[in-house]
Amino acid sequence: MLEELKEKVFRANLDLVKHNLVIFTWGNVSGIDREKGLVVIKPSGVSYDNMKASDMVVVDLNTGKVVEGDLNPSSDTPTHLVLYRAFPEIGGIVHTHSTYATAWAQAGKDIPNIGTTHADYFHDCIPCTGDMTADQMAEYEKETGVVIVNRFKDINYVHTPGVLVKNHGPFSWGKDADEAVYNSVVMEQVAKMAFVAFSVNPETTMNPLLIEKHFNRKHGPNAYYGQKKK
Amino acid sequence: MLEELKEKVFRANLDLVKHNLVIFTWGNVSGIDREKGLVVIKPSGVSYDNMKASDMVVVDLNTGKVVEGDLNPSSDTPTHLVLYRAFPEIGGIVHTHSTYATAWAQAGKDIPNIGTTHADYFHDCIPCTGDMTADQMAEYEKETGVVIVNRFKDINYVHTPGVLVKNHGPFSWGKDADEAVYNSVVMEQVAKMAFVAFSVNPETTMNPLLIEKHFNRKHGPNAYYGQKKK
Amino acid sequence: MLEELKEKVFRANLDLVKHNLVIFTWGNVSGIDREKGLVVIKPSGVSYDNMKASDMVVVDLNTGKVVEGDLNPSSDTPTHLVLYRAFPEIGGIVHTHSTYATAWAQAGKDIPNIGTTHADYFHDCIPCTGDMTADQMAEYEKETGVVIVNRFKDINYVHTPGVLVKNHGPFSWGKDADEAVYNSVVMEQVAKMAFVAFSVNPETTMNPLLIEKHFNRKHGPNAYYGQKKK
Amino acid sequence: MLEELKEKVFRANLDLVKHNLVIFTWGNVSGIDREKGLVVIKPSGVSYDNMKASDMVVVDLNTGKVVEGDLNPSSDTPTHLVLYRAFPEIGGIVHTHSTYATAWAQAGKDIPNIGTTHADYFHDCIPCTGDMTADQMAEYEKETGVVIVNRFKDINYVHTPGVLVKNHGPFSWGKDADEAVYNSVVMEQVAKMAFVAFSVNPETTMNPLLIEKHFNRKHGPNAYYGQKKK
Repeated sequence: MLEELKEKVFRANLDLVKHNLVIFTWGNVSGIDREKGLVVIKPSGVSYDNMKASDMVVVDLNTGKVVEGDLNPSSDTPTHLVLYRAFPEIGGIVHTHSTYATAWAQAGKDIPNIGTTHADYFHDCIPCTGDMTADQMAEYEKETGVVIVNRFKDINYVHTPGVLVKNHGPFSWGKDADEAVYNSVVMEQVAKMAFVAFSVNPETTMNPLLIEKHFNRKHGPNAYYGQKKK
Repeated sequence: MLEELKEKVFRANLDLVKHNLVIFTWGNVSGIDREKGLVVIKPSGVSYDNMKASDMVVVDLNTGKVVEGDLNPSSDTPTHLVLYRAFPEIGGIVHTHSTYATAWAQAGKDIPNIGTTHADYFHDCIPCTGDMTADQMAEYEKETGVVIVNRFKDINYVHTPGVLVKNHGPFSWGKDADEAVYNSVVMEQVAKMAFVAFSVNPETTMNPLLIEKHFNRKHGPNAYYGQKKK
Repeated sequence: MLEELKEKVFRANLDLVKHNLVIFTWGNVSGIDREKGLVVIKPSGVSYDNMKASDMVVVDLNTGKVVEGDLNPSSDTPTHLVLYRAFPEIGGIVHTHSTYATAWAQAGKDIPNIGTTHADYFHDCIPCTGDMTADQMAEYEKETGVVIVNRFKDINYVHTPGVLVKNHGPFSWGKDADEAVYNSVVMEQVAKMAFVAFSVNPETTMNPLLIEKHFNRKHGPNAYYGQKKK
Repeated sequence: MLEELKEKVFRANLDLVKHNLVIFTWGNVSGIDREKGLVVIKPSGVSYDNMKASDMVVVDLNTGKVVEGDLNPSSDTPTHLVLYRAFPEIGGIVHTHSTYATAWAQAGKDIPNIGTTHADYFHDCIPCTGDMTADQMAEYEKETGVVIVNRFKDINYVHTPGVLVKNHGPFSWGKDADEAVYNSVVMEQVAKMAFVAFSVNPETTMNPLLIEKHFNRKHGPNAYYGQKKK
């Protein structure tokens, strides 16, 4: 069932290790088959060393029930499901505890858009969610998704494909699992550069026109970066 | 004698190198056989490159005397023994000079619990010990154990399996040598992220409810992370 | 056409990966044949993993038109061309988003010359350009070259072979592509050390005489570093 | 001539690369044969990739003249010679531009002794030299040695085997080339940890008694670290 997607999600999980975004079991990638309404996700607490494509767990988008797989799905599965339901254009989601992005999440701060590396992939600041209420913690993983979605009320989730969950860490997404991994690498790099930049100059800012320029070089109808023919 | 434990402790020592927690001879791992009252520990000042499982030294838990082995045990052995005696549930201990955890120890500061990465494995702050008196320095390694144990008077050592010895570096522990190594990796990662987070926002804190939530996802009767059946 | 230069530029692009200055497609190297008035440059948005020497694109120095190659040239090509036209002694140009140099660019600050590592290769501060006007952004990549050239009105581009483009990242150059790569490595290293040095001592400076001494050890008629006979 | 020492110095130079203390040609190691009054040192500006043991240059301790070798000796040779003459107990010297130690040198600050990692190998702060006068710069490399020696008027060079040359970088030494390399690794690690520690707590200090304790665990008549029999 969904062998191709399982393989893709499996490989995307291993890419997190390759890009030094996770140690031990501290991350997970999922991918969705929108037609079937099924999500493929990493099993919970399984080491990347021993994991096989067939260990990926298939979960129903709407009920959250395991449809196929002997292992428990990632404990963060309810967060992924809320995001897939709220953000119809995304096909893959990544969660890591990558060092610098997680540090910004622990700082409880949005990462301001102060560089073209950031603007090339994320239009706005990389937003940080607010505190959860005690009530929300009763359904912690589901509500993690809810606070993310709320934070994007006035932010376009396609143009800013990632978020910091306060005191926790980054989630990113994309049109598929690979793009979500790519965006998680960008977030970590952007978080590291912003840490250094604000240490050097706490008052630094970027001209909003430059953000538009760089974002539109790579996105939208007038994009001209890369090899895609217009 | 204790061949299996020697092999385990030997491999755990090498894991410190693999995880970039030690250079040269700057670290040691021990494991205990509680039934026999014997501790297996790395020899002192021996390079990881040439070390063999048979070089591990067997020491009596109560007397501290070498029971087997041609080499001197780690100079930190008296610290390990004090901890094994005071903390009956631990089976392995690790000491390193890993960069960021050691830097916090040199700063003389507890690492506040400001992130779920921390709360997943350490319930409280990672505490830093106080200064030793001149008298204590006469039996330095033993008294290092004593100041650690004193620091845990009001902290549960099972739920917070590590400490910073002021101006020195981290010790961690666990149910066996492997878990102690795991926790030493977590401490280093947590120390690095906290350094960055406080640089970005010196005032950051975490909601105590979130600490409970994350700690209990992985520990205690209602844990639901990973593949262990409840 | 220009097979040797293509090979050289191709290898210089791969050297950026080897020196950890780029991830994904975030960098480009070009080289020039001054006699023919032709520039060889990396194609836009192509991964370093699959790139071949024959993928390098040949562009006319004056018109900017592609003379040979099936792929689009780097989107930064107009910047390279402006620099080649304004700086007649350079034979190679590098652009990266290397972490620390980019962070200084995002901070919008010149990197002051506070060390001999810096002075050995860059006589002045590593200058940061100013903000672009809205008008300039209409021809963004060309104008990026213009703001760089303007910044060098009072700086000798041979003696200070690199610049930070504000909020964007570093460009460096040299007598050929290899030297431009070398200088990009130096810039990144200098940027990292300056970040740490100013964190330790925000007021630090260097005696201008020491700058002259070190720069002239390696450059000019009385250079005595290395193996070149005088 | 001195084949064994050449091999040893050659390997020590390569160890700098292995320990990530140098890139390109930015470092040098020398060793001395005290009986013959000859110093073996790395050639100037030669890449570590191509260097052979037979490329090492033999220099007369007193005259500074090349006694054997086709290549120019390191441009820092006069510094090494001053140190060998002033510090009779040392057998090897290392100079690098390692990142964190160089950053402290650029900051123009002594590295205070705030940790046992430091105290295990360096009894005092790692001192930073003062500014050179214009006159001294006329014989720059020789005078670099002079300012180092002056800085050690009240510091025991055997117990504190390294120094930061202001705005330049670290020199370290030891009983032979290998120990000098070892100490250069320690300096870099100590410099990195001190950078982080002072960022976390700018006021941190260490009890001087703890310095004595740790230093004497490894040095002097009552040392008990490692496998050397007392």
